[in-house]
Amino acid sequence: MSGTGYFRDNIAAMHGYVPGEQPRDRQYIKLNTNENPYPPSPRVGDVVRDFDWTWLNRYPDPLGDVARDACARVMGVERDWIIVGNGSDDILTIITRACVDQQSSLAFFAPSYSLYPVLAQIQGAQQVVLPLTDNFEIPDDVISRIAGTRLLFIARPNAPTGNAFPLDRIDQLCGDYAGIVVIDEAYADFAADNCIDLVRRHDNVVVTRTVSKGYSLAGVRFGWACAQPSLISGLMKVKDSYNVNALTQAIAVVALDDQSCFTANIRRICATRERTAAALVAAGFQVLPSAANFLYTRPPGAAADFVDHLRSQGILIRYFGGDYVRITIGTDPESDALISAL
Amino acid sequence: MSGTGYFRDNIAAMHGYVPGEQPRDRQYIKLNTNENPYPPSPRVGDVVRDFDWTWLNRYPDPLGDVARDACARVMGVERDWIIVGNGSDDILTIITRACVDQQSSLAFFAPSYSLYPVLAQIQGAQQVVLPLTDNFEIPDDVISRIAGTRLLFIARPNAPTGNAFPLDRIDQLCGDYAGIVVIDEAYADFAADNCIDLVRRHDNVVVTRTVSKGYSLAGVRFGWACAQPSLISGLMKVKDSYNVNALTQAIAVVALDDQSCFTANIRRICATRERTAAALVAAGFQVLPSAANFLYTRPPGAAADFVDHLRSQGILIRYFGGDYVRITIGTDPESDALISAL
Repeated sequence: MSGTGYFRDNIAAMHGYVPGEQPRDRQYIKLNTNENPYPPSPRVGDVVRDFDWTWLNRYPDPLGDVARDACARVMGVERDWIIVGNGSDDILTIITRACVDQQSSLAFFAPSYSLYPVLAQIQGAQQVVLPLTDNFEIPDDVISRIAGTRLLFIARPNAPTGNAFPLDRIDQLCGDYAGIVVIDEAYADFAADNCIDLVRRHDNVVVTRTVSKGYSLAGVRFGWACAQPSLISGLMKVKDSYNVNALTQAIAVVALDDQSCFTANIRRICATRERTAAALVAAGFQVLPSAANFLYTRPPGAAADFVDHLRSQGILIRYFGGDYVRITIGTDPESDALISAL
Repeated sequence: MSGTGYFRDNIAAMHGYVPGEQPRDRQYIKLNTNENPYPPSPRVGDVVRDFDWTWLNRYPDPLGDVARDACARVMGVERDWIIVGNGSDDILTIITRACVDQQSSLAFFAPSYSLYPVLAQIQGAQQVVLPLTDNFEIPDDVISRIAGTRLLFIARPNAPTGNAFPLDRIDQLCGDYAGIVVIDEAYADFAADNCIDLVRRHDNVVVTRTVSKGYSLAGVRFGWACAQPSLISGLMKVKDSYNVNALTQAIAVVALDDQSCFTANIRRICATRERTAAALVAAGFQVLPSAANFLYTRPPGAAADFVDHLRSQGILIRYFGGDYVRITIGTDPESDALISAL
């Protein structure tokens, strides 16, 4: 035996998740990984600069209770409704490992976050892929198609399409479904509403969040899940004991508590989003309504050519194949550069 | 269905890993979690204080190549022999998920690191528990007992016993075994030798390391694995894309490159270890020879009483049940306090 022979068959056969490129060769306008273009709260700067690094020899709080409290304040719940993770990808991994195995299935929509099938592959679980309608909405017959599955991932707002499925539709799904519904709210900070109330009403709902987008902190890796305490205590058994480091815990707390910086950045990004969408429409692009910090848009010409053209202009966007591209909302000058390059 | 009914049976049935306590109620002398008593390299302080926090809105390098290079320098290998993780616990999790499933088995010694059975339980894999001899050495018949298993965890130096199994015995095991051998070198910084050469000689060997112990950085969560590139590329498929945050990557690099600070701290801890062991022996304790930053020792009276007595003196040590306790090596004043309390 050698090389891949040492791995499980599903691991040997799979390709890993491919993150958006982070080029180091030149300075690009990065509209490809849905990062927030603005720096985080200045309080993050204070906490980093003043951090007592001499205490890094000690393990961090394994449960991250001070950070859990900050998350709980944002969600309007108590500490025991929260579990924290090394980014919300860590949370999605924990839930997958807790709920499905080789004898069970997980369901997700297509197109949606491309990590979901990767998590299923790693776990060796069966995948039930649910194509969205032509309007990128949840199909009417979904509940019959997910019967027997144990786990359903819903990104709301959805990625890469940017739309937010109707709340009452998701509420109904949560009530009708026998397994766990994960509502991945990585982009909810940019939307008009969210699913926190569903967590109170349904004991099978987990809402996941991150500081990567709304709080401009993709670099620190911090996410959390909110669910009823019986679910949270089960997920706690699966997480790595010290999954969130000491600096990240301290940074997350001050960022989450600085709601005025957060709100100002969200407003700016949403304004730029609407302005950019209008310019794309004017240039002949088809643009989906977005509740996120990116636009899913169909260029008038070939999508791949458009991606190459922008790259030649120093602008990176994300292309998954097909007729559409995903464009992250940057600063206003970055948006101007994009519009000039159309 | 409600509560634990949403989880896989193995998850619902299990207890989670219990980390050593991190009390916040009063100031203890913490000799219970094998932390390094000294602060990390002063270069860590510089890199934290000067870190450009305004760039935390960007994702970290998903592969952590600069940090991989620093690890590669320590191990004397090339970058593609290294994968980095959110602590070496993350690395152990990645290997477990890559190599075993519900149809396969993983093997480990007892006593050893108490995370190994937890990883098996989460994965739903079968456990083959290999009791060490009365001298806490590898039993002669081990190779026949692990036939058919896919993964073997060996902690060297072993925890909580502190001894380092003979190198030639491990070399032989690696050659004879058909699965992956993980040599968990979390404590190798305190030992006279290590297993790096075995990685070169065997394509089924993974050596794991951490900055938590030798480099005084338990708070930042950084570990790595070293193996031949074919194994590393398989493990890459299983890791979370952005599993190591930007600050931790920067901190790990400067800490790993400051070998003079590292070596000085290791020397101090090893000297304190020998002095503490001698004092325990003089007080009637049985003390195992240690190649780590802790001592595994049998008090002359009841172990649980000894633990309680020390706690009343403001000193925490680790007790797993049985006749032995594990005492982390602290500073010289902390060791003096321990010796006074005997």
